[in-house]
Amino acid sequence: MSTNKLWPYNAENIHPGFSVDCVIISFHKGKLKVLLNKFNLEDYWSLPGGFMLNSEAADEAAYRILKTRTGLTNIFLKQFYLFSDPKRTIMKQNIDFVERNETTKGEGQWLLRRFISLGFYALVKYDEVKLTSVEGELSKWYDINILPNLYSDHNNIIKTALDTIRTMLPVIPIGYELLPEKFTMTELRKIYENILGKTLDRRNFQRKILAEGYVFQLEERKKSQVYNAPILYSFNLQNRDENFLGKF
Amino acid sequence: MSTNKLWPYNAENIHPGFSVDCVIISFHKGKLKVLLNKFNLEDYWSLPGGFMLNSEAADEAAYRILKTRTGLTNIFLKQFYLFSDPKRTIMKQNIDFVERNETTKGEGQWLLRRFISLGFYALVKYDEVKLTSVEGELSKWYDINILPNLYSDHNNIIKTALDTIRTMLPVIPIGYELLPEKFTMTELRKIYENILGKTLDRRNFQRKILAEGYVFQLEERKKSQVYNAPILYSFNLQNRDENFLGKF
Repeated sequence: MSTNKLWPYNAENIHPGFSVDCVIISFHKGKLKVLLNKFNLEDYWSLPGGFMLNSEAADEAAYRILKTRTGLTNIFLKQFYLFSDPKRTIMKQNIDFVERNETTKGEGQWLLRRFISLGFYALVKYDEVKLTSVEGELSKWYDINILPNLYSDHNNIIKTALDTIRTMLPVIPIGYELLPEKFTMTELRKIYENILGKTLDRRNFQRKILAEGYVFQLEERKKSQVYNAPILYSFNLQNRDENFLGKF
Repeated sequence: MSTNKLWPYNAENIHPGFSVDCVIISFHKGKLKVLLNKFNLEDYWSLPGGFMLNSEAADEAAYRILKTRTGLTNIFLKQFYLFSDPKRTIMKQNIDFVERNETTKGEGQWLLRRFISLGFYALVKYDEVKLTSVEGELSKWYDINILPNLYSDHNNIIKTALDTIRTMLPVIPIGYELLPEKFTMTELRKIYENILGKTLDRRNFQRKILAEGYVFQLEERKKSQVYNAPILYSFNLQNRDENFLGKF
């Protein structure tokens, strides 16, 4: 384990009792993925997260943490919920971690105080993300429906992010954020199926999406060995704005 | 000024460096209103807000504060943004307040530490709200477009709440929350005009709203002395759910 695990944090230079956690979501081979971190020798995976320095706003802290821990830069993060249950971090798992760990067992006792955590989510294009490894730490995409053992209340943070995105589906251009410029109707439908947790009728979906006016068909098919290669589509968000948000 | 202004708070029983602020919005006589508080002798109005006790989650703190400071209970509050600019509360106005004020100038110095604040918004029906006066404190509805001098960054908190609601218009049943059971099409249109900050064409608005399928016309007109009294409408949110959120 890295000996500077707590770098650059100590009890004095962070805003007290406050952390941030990031739910970074991508789409790959028909599945929604979430980015998780793990130090080599730890038992649990966790969301990329950390503390807010006294000089930072919460969004600045989230950007710094993502850059340091995963190599991600320039992604759009959105606050979605403050996790503030008084008992959320007072759990055996955390106490064990702090007491077992060489770096934290002495001066890291402040980690056992109550922490509230601001959840951010981001929707990114899988192929555009170059994960860079950080010393002693692993970063990996996991299928959002098949998660490993997670630290603290991170399962609940991921579930709440998905609930938020589900509610916001009509106002988030989710396919636009997750898909490459050209995509098939099946890929777009799979995203909605993953978020809604159900199978959607192929033809109904296509009809309704095209009726919204912000997805259009290209004169092009996906490169494929198959005889009947699927048609490609693209987004026109300007149409979406006119038809949708500005509908009145 | 009430001498127990800081009750029940002190530096030890609250979560450090954290507060909540509530933007409570109603609709009355064609205008959006926001609920503001002011202690009798203070210069500034402010959003109903306060601190989170060590035993509370943020939502519990917000409900307690609203009940204590305005008499409001059972209203639906929703987190919308954490205000965390490092300088947001380090302003002359706040320093003056703490130093001038008998209750705070000694033991209340902790009020000058950095605070981050979680914004909540609520949409309530004007006629259902019974504001109860709290000793030494005024609660009053203000036209959201004609605000008095506000404390700290509360102007920005209100602006951000409105921006959030504007973005969420397609997924928030805003008329349902703000209007009585029976309403006129003009009243509903005025709400959208207030939120969008522009005049909407009367007939286009009516056509589009009715096409959504969750507003229906009643066999009833508004009680009025006018010969051609306006028709009344009502909501059917079940239709809204089917047509809208669950559109796929």
